[in-house]
Parts: sequence; structure tokens; C-alpha cells
Amino acid sequence: LHPPLITLTTDYGTHDHLVGAMKGVMLKILPEIQIVDICHHVLACDILDGALTIGMAYKYFPSKTIHVVVVDPGVGTPRRPILVTGDQHYFIAPDNGVLSMVFDQEEGFSVRHITSEHYFHRPMSNTFHGRDLFAPVAAWLAKNQQPLSFGEEINDPVRFTLPKPRAAEGKVRGVVLKVDNFGNLVTNIPPDMIPQVFIPDGRFRITVGGRDVPKVMLSYGDGGPNEPFGILGSAGLLEISINRGSAARTLGAQRGAEVLVELL
Amino acid sequence: LHPPLITLTTDYGTHDHLVGAMKGVMLKILPEIQIVDICHHVLACDILDGALTIGMAYKYFPSKTIHVVVVDPGVGTPRRPILVTGDQHYFIAPDNGVLSMVFDQEEGFSVRHITSEHYFHRPMSNTFHGRDLFAPVAAWLAKNQQPLSFGEEINDPVRFTLPKPRAAEGKVRGVVLKVDNFGNLVTNIPPDMIPQVFIPDGRFRITVGGRDVPKVMLSYGDGGPNEPFGILGSAGLLEISINRGSAARTLGAQRGAEVLVELL
Amino acid sequence: LHPPLITLTTDYGTHDHLVGAMKGVMLKILPEIQIVDICHHVLACDILDGALTIGMAYKYFPSKTIHVVVVDPGVGTPRRPILVTGDQHYFIAPDNGVLSMVFDQEEGFSVRHITSEHYFHRPMSNTFHGRDLFAPVAAWLAKNQQPLSFGEEINDPVRFTLPKPRAAEGKVRGVVLKVDNFGNLVTNIPPDMIPQVFIPDGRFRITVGGRDVPKVMLSYGDGGPNEPFGILGSAGLLEISINRGSAARTLGAQRGAEVLVELL
Repeated sequence: LHPPLITLTTDYGTHDHLVGAMKGVMLKILPEIQIVDICHHVLACDILDGALTIGMAYKYFPSKTIHVVVVDPGVGTPRRPILVTGDQHYFIAPDNGVLSMVFDQEEGFSVRHITSEHYFHRPMSNTFHGRDLFAPVAAWLAKNQQPLSFGEEINDPVRFTLPKPRAAEGKVRGVVLKVDNFGNLVTNIPPDMIPQVFIPDGRFRITVGGRDVPKVMLSYGDGGPNEPFGILGSAGLLEISINRGSAARTLGAQRGAEVLVELL
Repeated sequence: LHPPLITLTTDYGTHDHLVGAMKGVMLKILPEIQIVDICHHVLACDILDGALTIGMAYKYFPSKTIHVVVVDPGVGTPRRPILVTGDQHYFIAPDNGVLSMVFDQEEGFSVRHITSEHYFHRPMSNTFHGRDLFAPVAAWLAKNQQPLSFGEEINDPVRFTLPKPRAAEGKVRGVVLKVDNFGNLVTNIPPDMIPQVFIPDGRFRITVGGRDVPKVMLSYGDGGPNEPFGILGSAGLLEISINRGSAARTLGAQRGAEVLVELL
Repeated sequence: LHPPLITLTTDYGTHDHLVGAMKGVMLKILPEIQIVDICHHVLACDILDGALTIGMAYKYFPSKTIHVVVVDPGVGTPRRPILVTGDQHYFIAPDNGVLSMVFDQEEGFSVRHITSEHYFHRPMSNTFHGRDLFAPVAAWLAKNQQPLSFGEEINDPVRFTLPKPRAAEGKVRGVVLKVDNFGNLVTNIPPDMIPQVFIPDGRFRITVGGRDVPKVMLSYGDGGPNEPFGILGSAGLLEISINRGSAARTLGAQRGAEVLVELL
């Protein structure tokens, strides 16, 4: 039998004791759990960035993994804490939309409003539910495997729609969803919307924030110095990159920048 | 039986191999230990910041956890390495005061000067006792559970007093102890010194660095945009915060800034 | 029997889900592995920095540890993925020289070109072989312990020579290899090339980037405020440091800066 696996995705950063305290609370409840950090540098209070981070990572984990996602600007207000049972994974998060990209990818899922306060840490703060609510609930779920014990099912979890690319008159308009560690611009445009871009001799024109991206490459290393290019990124979306450089800096583009693909 | 648990709190940062080398040394001695990072971003050589970090985190861990705390500007000088047996936890650290906030919270504790050199890593550097002394001592303690084997008891560990708030003539003067990842200002003022602040219709005036903090909220989400407010933080102390913003930046306040609470 | 141990050294940073996805892939293949991060802040695409990081850390880990090193600007190009069986450890990396400092320290080692595609993650991206190739190969190796199953042996792995100090006419010329978290300058000069520097009353003169470093200390704490000094660092090399300060900032020196030691 394997040790239960819990992942953490938060905007707590790593400069404080916050993540450590969460882990302590969990290990006190169930010492044999394995805890894996997905990311603690979600942009502060940024639910979209949190939704993308967990949405791009969770499927790589084993079934029955418990994913704790705490991007929670409404901590202490009446926003609900929820426990989601998906096809193969569990998710524990505030009900603020941070699981929207998870919902988009699951065939079937049920959502429970976590109300069983005997699982919470005491004393309970009003400002740090990562430690006092989400962490202990995750550890107790790892221990009892009984999602029903945490609260009643609900049918109206908060869910937002990711910005979708729009196609019209041979043009696809998308946006930059995320800038990664290397300065690559991850867009919201999937390759099947822009087939010409990824075939030999396909004719197209890509512009980001009004600046031209003349080529598409098969790998980062094919690009010349300071030459921005499109590439099929690891999230299955069009990325704009520069070999050994930062496309974000060179193009002056941030999250939300418009990406225009003209199919010629 | 559970795997022994060791936590790490250091100012080594995560841009070098230093923390990795410490973990390797420990796992070579006892492969089944579980290692949890509390924080590696204690401000460099800052013993107060280290004392706060471990002091705010250790109680959340299971009993018998071994906490390794390495903020050690005196590495290689005659400062003593110590092993502390507290009520429920062990602590391994340089004897420079970094455990002061631990001592404040423990009912009873004993301190040993670590002198049993056969537990140290060889060759022993003069500059990296995290790897060569503190890590192997922690792993050997996890293995033998015999604090007595590491050295003689001492009665004079270095211990400093945290800056205390002062109350006089209806005013409480405190300071900012720490700025957290969100820019919240954690003060040293406990709520029982300023009861009017946390009751309905209580009359008070809070100023930080000379700037007015007009309100107190129950949760971060209750604050308006760019509106600084007081709140009871998760460490059980008055915090100054801004909803989805940085109180540190907005108020121009850093660690050490004066916090004045007038009870009206 | 101990859980298999896998370490990770990458330039992925910790602001994205990339490292989390790698860990998920490995735990899906073998849930009982223990994963240790050595460093994810290798300078982006910097093979020398990656080589130093793994080269300074791997020997501290238990035998049979599997070290995954992904600094891989050539991902998706024909550069080979390799599996190295060293004296006591395994290494999995792109064949771009990032294991050069490992090769320098191993008595004997064999290198295999990883070609057994049935071990790879499907679908396979062209841009994220950390997740799709290196992570699953490491987990499968932890599971089957059969390096032969991953591909044929090769004799020509890419290997570069670290910048070597040169001695002539009583002078040793070296360079700064690395600036650590504290601003210490780690040079490439071993103590046996400059014996006068480390003996009492030895006469020498050290300059870094043209600026004088007047003294040598036994421990960081012996230095005065803002006083740069030489010291024997934990990697067994001459370091230039300042007590509770940054030698890099004070001396205006970065990686690659010339370090001149005159033996008088």
C-alpha cells in the first residue's frame, strides 16, 4: 500500500513559515503522508493564475492524489470551502473559481461544501485557513477516504470561463495566459484552431502586442538569437518564445497581451 | 512506526546546492527520514527573523519532530552548537539566540552543548556547519533518540528578548516584527493589550510610521481597495493589512516601524 | 529496504507547475520514491552553473541515488538524453556537458544513450523533456534498476573543462565560478595551489577585479564590517567573503571576474 499523496498549490510564497505550518498540521494528523509542492508562487490573490497552475499539473499525479489549492483572498468571509471528487483525484480549495480549469477537464465530478468543523484545527484563525481548515481536511481525507463525511453536496460551485480565443475572417485572436520562468508566453490558442501554423509551408502571420513573430519552430534550440518564434508548448497551446532569451522582455508582453494569428 | 521527521529552517536560500547537500548528508545516515522545509529564506544572518520563523511554526508539527535551525553568522567561531530537548520537540541550532522564541514557549527544556565529534561529517569545513554538523547530528538523533550522547548539559544558552510592546497612559507602542509575503505587517502587539480594538464600537486610533490605520476588520476580504486596516493575524498578533494589496508598500513601512495604538 | 531516492537539479525555477508535473509523473510510476530537490534555480540555460550545482552536491547523497539534471536549452533538438552509471550514483541528463563536473570526480563511469521510448511519457512534448523523458526514465530506473534497458553504451558524451587557474611566476590567476546566496565569491583556486595563503604569516596579495582583498580568515565571523577577505570555502576552494555582507556587491564582482593571487 502506498503512502497517501497530497499536493500543495498556494500563493503563500516561500519566504515565511506558512507552508511549513500547513505541512506540520498535516503530518500531525497522518505522519505517513507524502506531500509534494506543485507551486507556492501563484501570483498573490490571483485566482486565474491559481486555476491555470493546478489545471496544468494535476493530471500527472497518481489517482487518489489529494490536491490542496489555496488562493484565497476571501479567507474568513462567507465563501465556502469545498471538496471536489473528480474522476481520479480529490481537490480541496476555497469556492472562488480556482478549480475552474479542473472542472473543465473532468468527465464527472461532485462538489461538497466542507462544514464538518470537528476536522478543523483549533484554535481557528480568520486569516489562515490553509493551516486551520484546508490542510487538516486534506490529512483527514487521506486518513478516512470518506469525502461524504466532510459536508453536503452542492451543485453551484463558483466557476469562471477562461478567456477563449475568437476566430473570425481568417483571424484568431487570443491572449497571453501566463509568462513562464524562461519568459515564454503561453497563449490560450490550441493548435487545431490554427492548423496552417504547424504544417510545412503553412502561411500565417503572428503578432503579439502589435509586434511581429515571423516564424514557428519545432524546438526552442532552433531559434536564432533574439528571434521570437511560435512553438507548440508543453501545455498543448501556442507559445511565443526566444531561444535562450525571454520573449516577454523582448516583446514587452505580459499576461493579457493580445495574440493575433492571421491565416493567409 | 512513523518515519522520523526533521524540519529545516535556514537563511541559505534556494539558489545554491546548500540545502540539497544537507538533505543528502541526512539521508545517507538514515534513509527513511522525512524532511520538511519550513523556510530557507530567513533574512541572511538575521537571528531575530530566524527566531520568529521557527517560533511561529514548530508547534504545528508532531511530537518528537527534530527542528534544525541554521542562521549562523558565527559559523567556525567558538559559538556553541546546541541540542535542545523541549516539551515535545527537539531543536538543533547554533547557540546564538535563534531559539529564543522557542524557549519563550516551552514549559521545560534542557540544552546540551553538542561536542561529540564522531557524529560530524568528515572532512569538516569551517564555513558550512549546516552540512557538516547540524544535519548529521539531526540524522543521528533521529536514529539513536539519545540526546545525552551528543554532549553535556549547559545552563546558559544565549537568549534574547523579543521587542515588547509598552503600554502607558492609554497608549500601546509596538513595532512591526515581520512583513509577510502579501505585505501584511505583523506587529508584536497581542490582542489582550488592546481590547478596545477587537470589540464592536471599540474606540481606538492606530498609526503605523505616522500614518493612520482607521479600521479593524474580521477578514482580509472586508477591506476596501487601498484601505489599510488592523486584523487579528494567524500568529495571534495585531496585523496591519490591505485587501489584495501590500500594507508594507502602501504605508511605506518595514520591519521595525513603530505601531502606535491609542485607546480612546 | 529503503525507498529509492531521486534528486532534481533544474533551471525551471519554482514559479510554475513544471517541477510539480515532473514529480507527479515519477510518483505515478513508483509511488514509494523519495524525491529531493537539490536546486531549481540554476541560471536559465546555463550549463556551467548546472554542472557546478550537481558537481558540488551529489557526493553527499547515499549510494544508488538517481540524480536528474535538467538544464536543457537543446530540448527537442537531436541532442542525446543520457544515463550515467558512476561509482555509486546514477545520473540522468541531456548530453550537453552538464555532467562534466561529475565525470571529473568519478573513478569509473559508463554512459548510455537513452533510446528506449517505451519508458517515455505519452504524449511526448518537444519542449518539456523534464516531464516527458527525464522524470519517467528516472522513475523506471528506480523501479527496475536496469540501466542496460534504457539504451546502448556510448563513448563520446559531451564534456567541457571547467576554467582552470593558471600559475606562472609566483602568480595564480583564477576566476569567480559562482556567487552564492550570501554574495560569497566561489573561485576555482584550490588551496594547494596557494599554500602561503593558508599558513600563519604567509605573505600574499589577493585582488578580485582589480580590488584588494587584504586578509584571509578562518571563519566568516572573524571579518570586520565591509572588509573583504579570503577563506577556504565549503567546496574546498578559495572564497572571497564579507562578514554579514555581500562580497559580490562590495567588490562589484560577478561570475567570471578575475581572481589574482600573488605569492610574495
